[in-house]
Amino acid sequence: MRKYDLAVVGATGAVGQELLQVLAERGFPYDPESLKLLASERSAGKKINYQGREYTVEATVPDSFTGVDIVLFAGGAASKLFAREAVARGAVVIDNSSTFRYDDNVPLVVPEINPKDAAWHQGIIANPNCSTIQMVMALKPIYDAVGLKRVVVSTYQAVSGAGVEAIEELRRQSALVSQGREIQPKVFPHQIAFNLIPQIDVFLENGYTKEEMKMVWETRKILGAPELAICATAVRAPVYRSHSESVNIETIKPLSAKEAKELLAAAPGVEVLDDPEQKLYPMPYQASHSDSVYVGRIREDISCQNGLAFWVVSDQLRKGAATNAVQIAELLYKEGGKS
Amino acid sequence: MRKYDLAVVGATGAVGQELLQVLAERGFPYDPESLKLLASERSAGKKINYQGREYTVEATVPDSFTGVDIVLFAGGAASKLFAREAVARGAVVIDNSSTFRYDDNVPLVVPEINPKDAAWHQGIIANPNCSTIQMVMALKPIYDAVGLKRVVVSTYQAVSGAGVEAIEELRRQSALVSQGREIQPKVFPHQIAFNLIPQIDVFLENGYTKEEMKMVWETRKILGAPELAICATAVRAPVYRSHSESVNIETIKPLSAKEAKELLAAAPGVEVLDDPEQKLYPMPYQASHSDSVYVGRIREDISCQNGLAFWVVSDQLRKGAATNAVQIAELLYKEGGKS
Repeated sequence: MRKYDLAVVGATGAVGQELLQVLAERGFPYDPESLKLLASERSAGKKINYQGREYTVEATVPDSFTGVDIVLFAGGAASKLFAREAVARGAVVIDNSSTFRYDDNVPLVVPEINPKDAAWHQGIIANPNCSTIQMVMALKPIYDAVGLKRVVVSTYQAVSGAGVEAIEELRRQSALVSQGREIQPKVFPHQIAFNLIPQIDVFLENGYTKEEMKMVWETRKILGAPELAICATAVRAPVYRSHSESVNIETIKPLSAKEAKELLAAAPGVEVLDDPEQKLYPMPYQASHSDSVYVGRIREDISCQNGLAFWVVSDQLRKGAATNAVQIAELLYKEGGKS
Repeated sequence: MRKYDLAVVGATGAVGQELLQVLAERGFPYDPESLKLLASERSAGKKINYQGREYTVEATVPDSFTGVDIVLFAGGAASKLFAREAVARGAVVIDNSSTFRYDDNVPLVVPEINPKDAAWHQGIIANPNCSTIQMVMALKPIYDAVGLKRVVVSTYQAVSGAGVEAIEELRRQSALVSQGREIQPKVFPHQIAFNLIPQIDVFLENGYTKEEMKMVWETRKILGAPELAICATAVRAPVYRSHSESVNIETIKPLSAKEAKELLAAAPGVEVLDDPEQKLYPMPYQASHSDSVYVGRIREDISCQNGLAFWVVSDQLRKGAATNAVQIAELLYKEGGKS
């Protein structure tokens, strides 16, 4: 099998580090000689030991992408600056930022759900928002079986979704609060330790945050269901890793909780953890560092016809970001999307 | 004004301590000479300094209630053992446990909402569940104005709802996790530090927890709306104090977000904190030690007709327990329910 010339942009961040780990774990066929670890100028010159080699992080410039087959953008502002440049130089871009997700010419792909969309890319394939990926993984088997009318979701999102500095902020604040000392929030708009912040990303004119609307727009695009009714409330919780979601759905045809469990248990990438007697249900501390999307608390919604309620937890740095991006890269060689 | 002979059962616990504080703050007309601080045998003999006097905690026995006008039960098993005994001795019981809440002969009262129900008591008045009180405070003005068809709620509940040992468990676990040390959960079924547990109270046959069904049963009883459709998901979060709730409602007649804000701002006991531009919304660390129910993130639910979404935070030891109980006691003398 040929080896791919790969570049990872944002290699020093939370998602970037996870991308490198997932590439190694999954044995992605990259060429170690040509692998480029790129970042902002601030991180240029840093050394990263990766798979027995030492790499020097380079500042990203347009020419970084010359001769590169696949570029994985970890997220942030780099995509807007460099993704088109990389495509112009012949690379395929897999982008974890929201820059291109709503562009009709850019497929938005979860490999278990809409792998074929990867084939019509024009150089860029977008990786969905972390909160969206885990929800849509749980929705898809139900959507296919009985149709979906409405989704109501409230999230409990981990701080690592906001990067390595956010992890450090929760750690520092937790210690300060325990010592009764004062907090000066830096990464988050308010104290996050022992608190909840019902704002992720900026507010839009309709009163929703951009994070909430991402879940609406992206779920519709991935499922190919432009009319699907979705309402999201996105909340930051003092959890290091793995997002949790309380989901209430209304299906078009009826589906019992038992049938839903069977469908979800059979879905690739989904694991059902649902045994109340054994106090078994998904939780962030158990889901972390796993690639699965865990679903539990599956029960009929007693407040409507054809309703189901469930609880979804997944490591948002893994399946919600890095793992999904690497799976997309795998589609490229598996399906010959890039020679 | 006459002074009441008062007893507080469970005086050494989280709610009991809060009851004493609220009684003092609100200037409740109790007789300091006759005030009895009762608890389990384990706590008997403890000294409590309260309002310039030293009280000795007594073990609760039936005769503890002889000559007592009003008994405040903080919660737990004591109500089942002693509430009827107190009533038999002529006292009026205000009970914070769930023992009598679903008894048709026991009123379930939130003083801002259904104060008149206190009048038909037969010796016992039940104080609702903390999660219910704050939700129903936000629902009531909307229910009165346009009617309610359906409520979907996901909670983010503080550990102090499980008592003082639970507060200590979060504190201890947070330190241990920071030191990379192992956790042995005692109060909660799983690690709570930096985690979320989607189980509060026991599981019932329908797949819901008792905490979730309390929100259904109690909201219906307080609003006098036995058919109201409600679905709850109750989740424990690593927050010391104040419960948060993400609520989606469907009203019978339409109500804009602007109108809902006006109704809520005018409702007694409710404060609207809702200015996205200023990053202003309710949060547990801000709501703690206040008696208000804070509502924010008020917006139209884009996934249904006549839908609204909002976020409710309140100190569940104050309005969710102690303050509401003392307000009920105030109704007794204000309305002459007890001479």
